[in-house]
Amino acid sequence: MQRERDAMTNVDNQPFGDRLDHAARAKKSVAAVGIDPTLSLLPPRLAALAMAGPQGLSGALTEFCLGIVSAVADLVPAIKPNIAFFEAFGMNGFPIYKSVCLAADSAGLLVIGDVKRGDIGSTAAAYASGLLDSPKVDLARVAEIRDPEEFQKAVGFLLGPHDALTLNPYLGSDSVKAFADRGLSRGQGFFILVKTSNPSSSEVQDLELASGGTVAEHVARLVDEWGKGSEGKSGLAAIGAVVGATHPGELARYRELMPAAPFLIPGYGAQGGSADDVAGAFREDGSGALVNASRSILQAWKTENAPEDWKGAARRAALAMNDDLKKALSKAGKWGL
Amino acid sequence: MQRERDAMTNVDNQPFGDRLDHAARAKKSVAAVGIDPTLSLLPPRLAALAMAGPQGLSGALTEFCLGIVSAVADLVPAIKPNIAFFEAFGMNGFPIYKSVCLAADSAGLLVIGDVKRGDIGSTAAAYASGLLDSPKVDLARVAEIRDPEEFQKAVGFLLGPHDALTLNPYLGSDSVKAFADRGLSRGQGFFILVKTSNPSSSEVQDLELASGGTVAEHVARLVDEWGKGSEGKSGLAAIGAVVGATHPGELARYRELMPAAPFLIPGYGAQGGSADDVAGAFREDGSGALVNASRSILQAWKTENAPEDWKGAARRAALAMNDDLKKALSKAGKWGL
Repeated sequence: MQRERDAMTNVDNQPFGDRLDHAARAKKSVAAVGIDPTLSLLPPRLAALAMAGPQGLSGALTEFCLGIVSAVADLVPAIKPNIAFFEAFGMNGFPIYKSVCLAADSAGLLVIGDVKRGDIGSTAAAYASGLLDSPKVDLARVAEIRDPEEFQKAVGFLLGPHDALTLNPYLGSDSVKAFADRGLSRGQGFFILVKTSNPSSSEVQDLELASGGTVAEHVARLVDEWGKGSEGKSGLAAIGAVVGATHPGELARYRELMPAAPFLIPGYGAQGGSADDVAGAFREDGSGALVNASRSILQAWKTENAPEDWKGAARRAALAMNDDLKKALSKAGKWGL
Repeated sequence: MQRERDAMTNVDNQPFGDRLDHAARAKKSVAAVGIDPTLSLLPPRLAALAMAGPQGLSGALTEFCLGIVSAVADLVPAIKPNIAFFEAFGMNGFPIYKSVCLAADSAGLLVIGDVKRGDIGSTAAAYASGLLDSPKVDLARVAEIRDPEEFQKAVGFLLGPHDALTLNPYLGSDSVKAFADRGLSRGQGFFILVKTSNPSSSEVQDLELASGGTVAEHVARLVDEWGKGSEGKSGLAAIGAVVGATHPGELARYRELMPAAPFLIPGYGAQGGSADDVAGAFREDGSGALVNASRSILQAWKTENAPEDWKGAARRAALAMNDDLKKALSKAGKWGL
C-alpha cells in the first residue's frame, strides 16, 4: 500500500513540508477531512446494522468511514482520523482506525493521525514505534532476527500508516524529539498543539508570561525552533502547529511566530470557524496550512436530508468547503494553488 | 470481575480519594507498580518465545505482564500500565493491555491507566467512553436497545477496567470535565499532569507567569479547583496530580497548592528519584500519594541476575521499595498506615 502511494505521488522520503505542499497543489485544495465516527452520525441503514451487535457495529463503522474516504479522496490532500472516536469502541475500534489509514493511504491521501500523544522520552519512543513504523522486512523472515529491537521494528504491528501525527507540547522537547527522530527521515511530520479550538483552551494556553506573550505564543516559538533544519524546498518545515479556527484574530500572529510551520486548523464548520477567519494562517502564496472539517462533512447527509446519499452529500460538502476556502484565500490575495 | 473486586474491597462507587486511601491502608503501602513492557525487559525464556513470531510475542508479553501483576498483587495498592508500551505493539498490544487491567482488577488492585489523554470536550468524551465505561447490561439484550448512545454504553467495548486515568491539562477544563462527568460518580479518579519527571519538562511547565509562579503551579491551582466537591471522608479529592520525583524540592510546594489532591509520583528508581525525595508529597498523616516504579521492578531479574526467578525478583524489588518508602516517611514523621 505504502509503495503504491509513494509511486503515485513520487514523494517517498521527501521532507514532510514538501509532501504536504505537493499534495495541496495536486488537489488544488487546502482542506482536510476529519474522520471522527460516532453512532449518531451513521445514516439509518448503517445505524440499524451497527445496532444488530458487535460485528454489525464494526461493519457499519468501517463502511461509513471508508465510504467517506472514497467520497472525498480526489478532492482533498489529507484526511485526519481522530483516534479517540475509534478508542471509544475499545478493542473493536482499532482495526477500523487502521482500515481508514490503509484505505486513505492507498487512495493517495496524506494520513494525519490525530492522536495528541505526549510522554517522557522513552515512553514517547514506544508510542512512536506503534504509530510511525512500517514493517521493514518480509514477515516470513522474522524468525531469523535475533535482536529484540530489530524484531519489533521488523514485525511493525503499526497503527497506521501515518504521514503525520498531532502531538501535545506540555512535556517539552523530549517528547517531540522521540517522534521526530523516528519519523522525519521517512518524510513524516508532526503538528504540535499550540492553540486549540475549545472554549477552555484559554485556561493554560492564554496565560501571560513574565517574559511577555502567552504560553501558546511561547509554544509557537518552540515549534519554530524544533522545525529548524527540517524544511523542504517549499520552505515548509516538518514540525507544524495546530491552531484553532475559532481564534481568527490570532492566526496571523501565529503565522508570524512560525513562518515555516505547516498549520493544521481545526474548528472550521461545526465548531464555528469560517473560511474568512482562516486566511491569516496561510503564507503569502496561499500555501502552508490545512483546514480540517469533520462533523460538517460526516453529517452532510443530515444537513441535506439525504440519508440514502450520504457519500454524495459528503462529497458535495467537501466541494463546498474547497470553494469556500478558495474564495476566502482569493479575497485575501492568497490563492496560489 | 468488577463485581468481585468491589465485593472484596467494599468500595464500589465510593469517592476515588477514599478508595485510594483504603487501598493504601489495606496494603500498608504507598507504592504503585508500572507495567511498561518492552522486549528487552523480557527474561530469556520469554524473549525467545516472543521472537518466534506474532503469536509468541503476544503470549510472552501477556505472561510477563500478568506474572508481574500476580507477583506484587498482595504488596501494593495499585498498578499503572502505560498504554504507550502496548500501543508500541499496535493491534496486538491492546488485548494485552486489557488483560493486564482485568487481571489487576480481579486481584483487588486499583488500576491507573497511564494514558495521558486530552482533547476538546466532545472528543474527550469519546476517549472517556472507551476508557471508563463498563458494560451495563446483559450482552444478550443489546438487540433490544434502539438508542445509539445507549447501545454504545451497553456494549462497552472498553479498554480497561480503570479506576483512574492520567490526563494532560494543556486543553483546560473542557477536557478534564468530559472525563470527570463520566467517572466521578462511579468512583473513578484522574491524575492531571502538573510537573512531569522528564528533563525537558521545564520548557513549558516552568515558564514564569506575569501573575507570579509557574505554568505548573498554575495548573496545580486548577487541579485543586477541579477537585473541589469530589473529596471523600479521607479528605482526598478524585482529581489528583502527577508530580515527578525528579523534582524533590518542589513536592512540598505542590502539596501546599493542592492540599486535597492525590499525588501520583513517577520517576522513582530507574529515573533517579529516591524515597527521601518524595516525603514532601505526602500529607501529614502519610496519606495522599502513590509512588510509582516501573523499570526497577520489571528488570529486577537483571539487577539480581536471576533470569529464571523474574517473578521473585519483582516481588523482592516491590518489598524493598515498600520498605524504602516506609523508612523515608517514618524519618519525615509521616508514616501513618
